[in-house]
Order: sequence, then C-alpha cells, then structure tokens
Amino acid sequence: MVRVTRTIIVETPSRPGNLGKVTTAIGSVGGDIGDITTKQIGPFSTIRDITVHCDTEEQLEKVVEVIQSLGDGIYVRSVSDDVLYAHLGGKIHMTKRMDIRSLADLRRIYTPGVSNVCRLIQKDPEKSRYYTSIGNTVAIVTDGTAILGLGNIGALAGMPVMEGKAALFDHFAGISGIPILLDTSDPDEVVATIKHISAGFGGILLEDIGAPHCFEIERRLDEELNIPVMHDDQHGTAVVVLAAAISACRNAEIYLDKAVVGQIGLGAAGLAISRMLIDYGVKKMYGVDRRTEALRQLAQYGGEPLSSIEELMQTCDMVIATTGVEGLISPEMVRPGQVILALSNPKPEIEPDAAMAAGAAFAADGRSVNNVLGFPGIFRGALNAHASKITRSMLVAAAEAISSCTKKGELTPHPLDFRVHEHVAHAVEKAALSQE
Amino acid sequence: MVRVTRTIIVETPSRPGNLGKVTTAIGSVGGDIGDITTKQIGPFSTIRDITVHCDTEEQLEKVVEVIQSLGDGIYVRSVSDDVLYAHLGGKIHMTKRMDIRSLADLRRIYTPGVSNVCRLIQKDPEKSRYYTSIGNTVAIVTDGTAILGLGNIGALAGMPVMEGKAALFDHFAGISGIPILLDTSDPDEVVATIKHISAGFGGILLEDIGAPHCFEIERRLDEELNIPVMHDDQHGTAVVVLAAAISACRNAEIYLDKAVVGQIGLGAAGLAISRMLIDYGVKKMYGVDRRTEALRQLAQYGGEPLSSIEELMQTCDMVIATTGVEGLISPEMVRPGQVILALSNPKPEIEPDAAMAAGAAFAADGRSVNNVLGFPGIFRGALNAHASKITRSMLVAAAEAISSCTKKGELTPHPLDFRVHEHVAHAVEKAALSQE
Repeated sequence: MVRVTRTIIVETPSRPGNLGKVTTAIGSVGGDIGDITTKQIGPFSTIRDITVHCDTEEQLEKVVEVIQSLGDGIYVRSVSDDVLYAHLGGKIHMTKRMDIRSLADLRRIYTPGVSNVCRLIQKDPEKSRYYTSIGNTVAIVTDGTAILGLGNIGALAGMPVMEGKAALFDHFAGISGIPILLDTSDPDEVVATIKHISAGFGGILLEDIGAPHCFEIERRLDEELNIPVMHDDQHGTAVVVLAAAISACRNAEIYLDKAVVGQIGLGAAGLAISRMLIDYGVKKMYGVDRRTEALRQLAQYGGEPLSSIEELMQTCDMVIATTGVEGLISPEMVRPGQVILALSNPKPEIEPDAAMAAGAAFAADGRSVNNVLGFPGIFRGALNAHASKITRSMLVAAAEAISSCTKKGELTPHPLDFRVHEHVAHAVEKAALSQE
Repeated sequence: MVRVTRTIIVETPSRPGNLGKVTTAIGSVGGDIGDITTKQIGPFSTIRDITVHCDTEEQLEKVVEVIQSLGDGIYVRSVSDDVLYAHLGGKIHMTKRMDIRSLADLRRIYTPGVSNVCRLIQKDPEKSRYYTSIGNTVAIVTDGTAILGLGNIGALAGMPVMEGKAALFDHFAGISGIPILLDTSDPDEVVATIKHISAGFGGILLEDIGAPHCFEIERRLDEELNIPVMHDDQHGTAVVVLAAAISACRNAEIYLDKAVVGQIGLGAAGLAISRMLIDYGVKKMYGVDRRTEALRQLAQYGGEPLSSIEELMQTCDMVIATTGVEGLISPEMVRPGQVILALSNPKPEIEPDAAMAAGAAFAADGRSVNNVLGFPGIFRGALNAHASKITRSMLVAAAEAISSCTKKGELTPHPLDFRVHEHVAHAVEKAALSQE
C-alpha cells in the first residue's frame, strides 16, 4: 500500500485555539499529521504548512473538506506535493571536487596534466585508490524486480529509490553512489554486465532485486569480484533487525545469544535475518514458512524448521515476523515473557499494544527498523579497510555497533544521528582488518 | 610523449630583478613556465610557486639545479606535484541535491515518500525525465584502448581522463557524467553491456576507444538505443576542428564552403573530420592515407582519395593534418595562399612559422584545438531537446556556434568562456528541434 503525503497550506486567524481546531479536524477523518511549519504570522492571520499522510486520495480530499468546513476565517490556501517537488530534476548530481578557474586548472585536471596520472596508474594499478574516486564509489544496482513493497515495477520506476540510496550514501558516509539500472534479471547476464563495468567501482550494493534470482546473483558476484558486494534487502536489513533484536532483548532483560529465537516467514529478508542471528550465536534458531525450499535453506544455515506458527510461538523466547500478513499472530499465541518483533509494513503481524497486553515482555513493529542505519556505515567501513568482501563478522559488528548506540527502552537509534553511522563504519573497518 | 609538470617553490630576496634571474635560468635549460603565483612577501624574502613544464624528469632536475646555482639568497624550497595533488581522492563525487536534516526530509526523499514517485514513473515512464536525474546524466564509457596519446593502457588507467570529462561536464554544462570502465573491447560484449545499463542514462559519450572497433560500437549503439550516443574522439574532435577550419579560412579571407579541402591522415579522427567538412558543404574533399580501407571509407562519405601528400598539398585551398608524424609537411610542399592546420600533438606536421614563411595565408598547430569546446555544449543541447540522436546537422550547428564565438585572428575561443558552451548548447538544441 502506498500512502499519500501532501502539504496542506492552511490560513487561520492569528488567535490561539485555531491550530487545535485544524489538527483535530484532520485527525477526525483519520489524517496522520507530520510536520507543521509556520510560514507567515500576520496581525490578522497565520499561514502554516501542515504535512498530512493519508491512506488514499479520497481520504486526503476529506481532510481538505473538513478543514474548509471549519469556517471562522480558517481555510486551505493550497495543497502541495512536497515529495514530487523534492524529486524535481532528480536527487543526485555528479559534481567536480575542485574549481576550474584558469587554464592552469584545466591543464592540471585534464590534458596534458592528467596523462601523468594515467601513466602512474598503468604502472601501479593500486594507485587508482588514491588518484581516482573509484575507492570511494559504490554502484547501486537494481533490476527493478522488488522495489520497496511495490514489487516488479522495473528498474526505471525504481530509480527514485536508487537515487535516495545515493543521497544517503553521500550524506551519512561521504560515499559516491552510482545507480545502475539493469534491463535484465537473468543471473548470467546480470553477472556478466556487472563484471564488465566493475573496474570503476569500489563496491557493489545490490538493491531491490527479487528472490530467488537475488541469491545466485549475489553469490556469484561475491565470488568473482574482489570488491565488497552486498544485497541490502537481505543483509542490510538483517543487520538492522539483529541490532533491533539485541536491543529488544536487552529491554526485556534477556540475553539474545542465550535465547531460543523463531523466524516467521523465510523470504529473502527472513532467511538473511535467521542466518544473521545464527552468526550472532543464538542458542537455537527456528523458522516457519510454507515453502519447503525456504525451510531447506534455513537448515543449511544451521537453523531448524518447525511445522506451525503456533509451535514456534510456544517454543521461542523471541519471535521475529516478516511475512507481510497483517494480524497473522493472534494474541492467544503469545507466550508470556516473550519478545516479539512483528516487522511487516505498513501493518504488523501483531500490534505491539496487543502483544504487550497478551503478556509479551517487549514488542515492536517495523517502523523503527530502517535499513538506512546499516548500509552507509557498512560500506564506509569496508572501503576504509580496503576489504575485498563483506564478511559475516563485519555484518555482526555493524549490528552490535547500531545496538550499542540505542537508548534503553528503544529499538534502534535515530537514523539521522551521524554518530551511529561513524560508529558502524569504525566497527566494520575494525572487523575487516582483524580478520586479515 | 608525456610531459612533466611540477610546481617549484622558489624563495628570492625581496628586491626587483630576482624573478627575472630565476625565469631566465629556467628558460636557459628549456623549461616551459606556466603560472607564477606569489605566496608570501616578507621584508627580506619573497616566496613564489612557479609551474614548470619539462619534457623529461632529467630536464626538471636541470631546472632545479640551475635555480639553486644562482646563489645570492635564491633557492628552491621544494618541488611539488600539483597534478597528483589535484587528483587525490579523485576529481568527482556523487552529491545529494537537497539537505537531509529532519525525519520529514528523510521520508520525502526515501521511504515512504519515494514510493509515490516510483508508482508515477511506473505508470508513465516519461515522468522519469522530471523526477529523476536520468535526463541530465551521461555515461562516459571507455575500454581504455586509446587513452589520450598513451594508447591501450586499459580502462582503469584511463579513469583520470574520464573523471576529468565528468568534472568538465559538471562545470560547463551542469551535466552529471558517470565514468563507466569496460573490461572488454569486443563490440558484441560492449554493446550488450551498455544496452543492459542504458536505462539509467540520458546519453552516452564514448571516449578514448580505439579504431577500428570504435566504429562498430558507435554505429550499433546509435542504432539500438534511443538516447544520444557520440564518440568524442571522432565527432567531438571533428566539431572543434571544423570550427577551427571555419575560423582559419575567415582569417585568410577564404570561404570554407567554397574551398577545396585536403585531409592528411584518415584515422578515426581524420575520417570524422573529413565527414564533418563534407557535411558542412566544402566544394571538394580530398584525403590521403596509407591504408586502402581508410580511403574506401572516405569515398563512402563522399570524399575523394589522392595518392600522395604532394598532390594533395598542390590541389587544396585548405589542408588539415592529423597523422601524429612530426615534420611530415616540408615547406616546399606549401602552396602560397593556402590555409594549413597541422594538428598533431605535441609536435605538428609543420610548424606554423615555417608554413607562414613558405607562403601559407594562415597556419596553426593543435594547441588551440581543445575538444572541451565541444562535448559539454553538444550534450547539453541534445539533452535539452530530448533528442534521441546526435545528428550531423546538430554537429555542424555546434561547430558554427564555436566559430561564431571566435575573435578575428584566432582559431578557437577560450575554452573557459561559459558563453561559448551556452552558445553551443543553444545551437545544438535548436538544430535538434528544427529537424523533428
């Protein structure tokens, strides 16, 4: 489900109480209010931008109507689509890192000066780490088969996500991220294409590639390239979920590494989460899924398949659900004292309130599990260490770093906290260097 | 030949005459002085950065020695490699175009906001022009087989050139240039690879790809993609040479379109120049080359092969040479009143002085034929027009625009003049739109 986000520009008389009327009205028809920004305060009237999230266009119309119907000088001046506006012209740009003001500048960065640098790299390819941007550049590769929750909408339609990732790479890690949109999902073609262009990149982030072809593509690229390769939807997500699981258990005063854990739903993310938990060292890892192939895969990682959700819920100290099925876990299934992360978006397998009421020691949904906490620092650390792979121990180190930045009572740290990303980068770099 | 460029930091007593001693000394051993920047003026001594171009490392050592030997308080404080320094960490970076300061910002440019934009593009792919950076992004593709004058040094060693092009794209045309380094030169593989990733780009600049495989690669990409494709070493260079030829003839009071023109050397660039001149409408286009295949190609474009340089020199009002052979044209061959562009770098087929002394009406070498005058504006215009091809008339328009910005007596305008690039972009856009 895609929600509708708009900024409603509202004018009210400059008297206390009017904003309360407006926000109450919005809430009365189910509108979810984001930021409110005061744009202009006049002697008579005040203008505010109110960001509203709605489930549908129809609901948005109702929100506008209900504000208009308030009267008393309150009215909607316009409704603006800030999201679209933010995307105008795209979100990223390849920028020169120096000024070009004189012929001397031109001769230094272009011909004839540049040929010295070319010769240097020809003699010693390692020098390209220092005198080109390659060592700081990560390709963000998608075939468009699993874009967010939208499914197989094609790589072109997935570009806004890739640009978003590139913007976040720049913002949090100073990494130059290059979207690569593939017109093929065939593992042979994908692997051949990426290998043919890989010399220009210091790492490969695979993004929103569907299962099962994502497994073969990642495995082969990881084996055949000597730069870090990571499928974010599997391992990036798994890192953040492991971090959340560590924090959740800490909040419930359970030691995750001594816990019995159950994973409901073994898609690409669910399998990666199970594997991550096994690598972290949980006592026992159970899983359920309808597909026997997924259960076989879980067993291969060292986990144990169970036959029903009920059995898993009764057996496990901690349960993680990534099925996409709203309300799959009923309150009766909850075992008192259990930790439950019901991560499906936009609606969880069980609401945290309901889980807590049913006796859970700690429960949360997927809203605070944002994979922006992982990938920037993971690649920053891998590139800093000149790592040729992203290993399991680097991923576990990233999760522990995220969890160590989390306040008591919370699941994950604030995603805009630069300290977290630095911490992750440092932990990953250290893990990479210590395994050499 | 690759020249050595260094910045020599020289300290002299703060008295008039000392800089003269230093520069004379540098000149006495053949050092070519670039910029001189005064860094510090003290009561007793002055420190200056003097950029010096030498042919070899040995000559550079001689330059340093001769300055040191001047005595009287003049000495070299250090020698710095500004070119390498300018390349540290690479010359380009993929940068976010908006700030990310709040959760609202994050939700706008990443999930959940971004999914609205994805859906919009899925429904109407044309929308990607507005809401992604694709329409402003050009891939700079090389296989590293013909990097500058260095030859087949590989794509990795060619990266500084590609980054230079990307920096110039950004600087002169606001275009986002993405270097793509290929590990293959096989036309089938190159075409397949570029096609698989082409959805992410609004244009393809082929760069420093050797002959003859550059011809097939360009032709097939041009046919099979519906975005502009241009091999800069052929057509970008040809545009600037045509501009120079128009200006040279104007200086000699000859009308190029009524002239008989000869091209000496029919490599990739020479053939593209001949074709460009034919498209411009020269009365008669002759050419010479040792390879019969090249002569056959010239005939295909509408030119006429000749059997000797002497015959060509006697026949033509204007002669262009791109052979790479220093001194190939002897003064005896020059026909009085002729216009001669001897473009080989670093040493021309005939020195302009010698050609003028032998009776040429106008003569020049390749130093002022810089292809940075062409490609940024050509792609800016093509992208602005949403052109699906770069046509011959767009290239001719670019050359005429460059020439129209050239002062009387000169061959080309200053490459750092923004007005030129805007002029080229506008002319190319107009040509693209008028042919629809």
